[in-house]
Amino acid sequence: MTQALRSYSEDRWQEGSGEPRPLLDAATGDEVALLPSAGPDPAAMLAYARTHGGPALRALTFTQRASVLKVLAKHLSGHLDEFAALSARTGATRRDTAVDVDGGIGTLAVYASKGARELPDSTVLADGPVEPLSRGGLFAGRHVLTARLGTAVQINAYNFPVWGMLEKFAPAFLAGMPSVVKPAGPTAYLTELVVRRIIESGLLPEGALSLLCAGPAGLLEALTEQDTLAFTGSAATALKLRTHPAVAGRAVPFNAEADSLNCSILGPDVAPGDPEFTLFVDQVAEEMTVKAGQKCTAIRRILVPEDLEVAVTDALVARLAEVVVGHPAAEGVTMGPLVGLAQRDEVRAAVARLASEAVPVFGDPDVVEVRGADLAHGAFMSPLLLRADSAARAPHEVEAFGPVSTLLTYRTVAEAGEIAARGGGSLAGSIVTADQGIAGGLVTALAPWHGRLLVLNRNNAAESTGHGVAMPQLVHGGPGRAGGGEELGGLRAVRHYLRRTAVQGHPDFLATLA
Amino acid sequence: MTQALRSYSEDRWQEGSGEPRPLLDAATGDEVALLPSAGPDPAAMLAYARTHGGPALRALTFTQRASVLKVLAKHLSGHLDEFAALSARTGATRRDTAVDVDGGIGTLAVYASKGARELPDSTVLADGPVEPLSRGGLFAGRHVLTARLGTAVQINAYNFPVWGMLEKFAPAFLAGMPSVVKPAGPTAYLTELVVRRIIESGLLPEGALSLLCAGPAGLLEALTEQDTLAFTGSAATALKLRTHPAVAGRAVPFNAEADSLNCSILGPDVAPGDPEFTLFVDQVAEEMTVKAGQKCTAIRRILVPEDLEVAVTDALVARLAEVVVGHPAAEGVTMGPLVGLAQRDEVRAAVARLASEAVPVFGDPDVVEVRGADLAHGAFMSPLLLRADSAARAPHEVEAFGPVSTLLTYRTVAEAGEIAARGGGSLAGSIVTADQGIAGGLVTALAPWHGRLLVLNRNNAAESTGHGVAMPQLVHGGPGRAGGGEELGGLRAVRHYLRRTAVQGHPDFLATLA
Repeated sequence: MTQALRSYSEDRWQEGSGEPRPLLDAATGDEVALLPSAGPDPAAMLAYARTHGGPALRALTFTQRASVLKVLAKHLSGHLDEFAALSARTGATRRDTAVDVDGGIGTLAVYASKGARELPDSTVLADGPVEPLSRGGLFAGRHVLTARLGTAVQINAYNFPVWGMLEKFAPAFLAGMPSVVKPAGPTAYLTELVVRRIIESGLLPEGALSLLCAGPAGLLEALTEQDTLAFTGSAATALKLRTHPAVAGRAVPFNAEADSLNCSILGPDVAPGDPEFTLFVDQVAEEMTVKAGQKCTAIRRILVPEDLEVAVTDALVARLAEVVVGHPAAEGVTMGPLVGLAQRDEVRAAVARLASEAVPVFGDPDVVEVRGADLAHGAFMSPLLLRADSAARAPHEVEAFGPVSTLLTYRTVAEAGEIAARGGGSLAGSIVTADQGIAGGLVTALAPWHGRLLVLNRNNAAESTGHGVAMPQLVHGGPGRAGGGEELGGLRAVRHYLRRTAVQGHPDFLATLA
Repeated sequence: MTQALRSYSEDRWQEGSGEPRPLLDAATGDEVALLPSAGPDPAAMLAYARTHGGPALRALTFTQRASVLKVLAKHLSGHLDEFAALSARTGATRRDTAVDVDGGIGTLAVYASKGARELPDSTVLADGPVEPLSRGGLFAGRHVLTARLGTAVQINAYNFPVWGMLEKFAPAFLAGMPSVVKPAGPTAYLTELVVRRIIESGLLPEGALSLLCAGPAGLLEALTEQDTLAFTGSAATALKLRTHPAVAGRAVPFNAEADSLNCSILGPDVAPGDPEFTLFVDQVAEEMTVKAGQKCTAIRRILVPEDLEVAVTDALVARLAEVVVGHPAAEGVTMGPLVGLAQRDEVRAAVARLASEAVPVFGDPDVVEVRGADLAHGAFMSPLLLRADSAARAPHEVEAFGPVSTLLTYRTVAEAGEIAARGGGSLAGSIVTADQGIAGGLVTALAPWHGRLLVLNRNNAAESTGHGVAMPQLVHGGPGRAGGGEELGGLRAVRHYLRRTAVQGHPDFLATLA
């Protein structure tokens, strides 16, 4: 008999209620935990965080908060094996877990370090210089940033149960706002375990972190003007949240980071024997298979020069043929299952839509050889490569959230930029070229459509962090379809949780503020 | 026979169509112009701006754009008399016109100057330092800001037909985005005149500025991912725009600056003989009567220490009794009419709601002595002072957008902060005190609820720009009820029209970007 997940609210673990939903092991279909349909009252959860967590956090300086994060990151690192074991049940190989769990803890550590080095030992952050507003010098203005008085509500996606929480929690905590975390159902048990270890550490002030392991009923309605809402997930859900009466009506700052149809472009300067050719093919294969393609930054559109279509296809098919699909713990497995059978059904449906305008090149959505597990109970799927021509619309509109990507060709660099823009806004794009001029032109063309662009070539490949990895130092988010938001980006993310206020007065008074 | 206003689209003046609506002189009720119900196709207007204005602006560097703004500000200054004459027909006295017209041109000039001094002679703006991302130093990241590829659509309010346009146009232009201006009906003729003078100047590239003098049908639907939308007006309209399928569904960056229930607080340290006492009373009277109280930053809530209630009331009543209401051009008039009879009806309705929880202290919404005009045809109204007790909710929720304010008392400084917060988010607040400690405490308490705070006392009053004036150097906007947005704030506003993109690659390549 598995355990029902509990929620952490008003500084204690609380049982949920209502008909629980079983959460299943991605590879075996065995029950891992039960998710209650209802949790503790979200309004009470938020109120407690506002009245206890907020004041306690605001009493600490930025430096003090950074120091808590540093110790917390170290504490969580001590539990890596335990986290990795449970992470495997989400379908994650050890490589996948590194992105989610190690990556999440690393993000905490980067915020701890940036907070210590780049923020003052104060509760107020000055923003920009004093602005003279009069000729005689008796009157001026300056901007200060202070913590919002509410809660930072975070609605996360199933694909990053740990990183998704920690990358939002870290900047909110540093800013002085308590976090309320609502994990996605399928992998909520891993989030719950990490929260349990965080709470047990005793490092956080009461009310600084709450967890809702249940449906979201009542959560949005409890938002007030001083709260913030951050969301990672589908564009459709982002739209619902953005237009919710409580969010829109109270002008609650809302940040969305939505899946997008990211592209990778192979430069026209590259020939099949060049290092860039191999770098490109390897990176595409990597992005298609890490986390079984369940990454909002995964490469969904592969853009190659017309005359390289055959060479790239052949090389990529050869790489994909090496992929070993199976139980994450089985020897030699390089790609685990999707998170669950329902998600596999969704990916298959999306592939069917893509197939109306694209032809299959590698893989079959219904057929895959599985090592160490059973296709009937685990959400396994073969990597799928499709090929579409320039008139096709589906590759720019339909996202199959799995190990699926579509190859497209372009004739000129300008056309490559135009095709990339058809995605309507992306989180991440990459350009693989050894030609600095081509790279510069594509960066200029693609920048307004992207949150992040990677220029990869032989000079930096040995140290590149890769197309798909959101780095804490750099903004993560993109325009349009990608949600129009920004996360991370170093201390930029901390500022989302602070309120900027212009203060006018005598310069002597302004000098006392920060 | 008055003229129908025309729209400026696809680089030519175009007639509107449909049943026109007469726009009336605020003081006399005479027809000033006709507003067509439909204008040229907004989709074509936006498309032209995107394909002509955008590329032309992006071909200029920040420095070159700043230089255009400088010459434009000078050009418009040469038309001040003409603008002031037409401005009077909106109900504006010369003092009111100074805020709107002179203030608008001054804002252009400040952006010209800041653009020249603080932005590079380039089309790309670096944002922050290079971030090392590897130990070997071969791989790093940096952020660049580039112009969005769409249009900056601006929906303005009737109370600032000139400033409202120019304070949005200036930063958009500097960023390299073409503006599409939709003025509010009642005062659209003044916006149209200023746009006419701008276009005639020949200073702007084709498509850099478009004007829609008509209803908004089709405007929002034409928005794409690369456009932005800025709005000034009521919270109710802001909510409609924010949740519109085109805006929310395409994650169009949306900025709202909504009316709010701003407060001014008299410090408990002030005695009736002190300079601060007079400064407070004078400022409240000024804010109640400038533009007949039709300012989103006007003081709606007057917070005074309990023991000063009688003294403040007496002094304020004496000041309000001196106000001369009448035709803006008539000798000795210190307050003009509201913009129109419909708006006066709205203010009266709001006063009736306030009166359910507040008692009148000065003025009658239906009675006023008018100089040089006729109460039956002009939208005149007496200044109105109300008094409410601490249990009243209406003063914190109901905005009478006219010369109306409510006096409230507080017992402790903490209570003053708590009462101020009941407004649910304000654009501007002021604190009048000679005690730096009291000022500091109130700034801390009020900052999360305010976009701007003025600390006024004898040391800076001679040069203070006042509670209500939005300065181009400082952010304008506030949380919650005030819309949750930010305008102005120097170059911060320019950044709203730029897209931030993280670029990763070899440091040598990153160095070429900006």
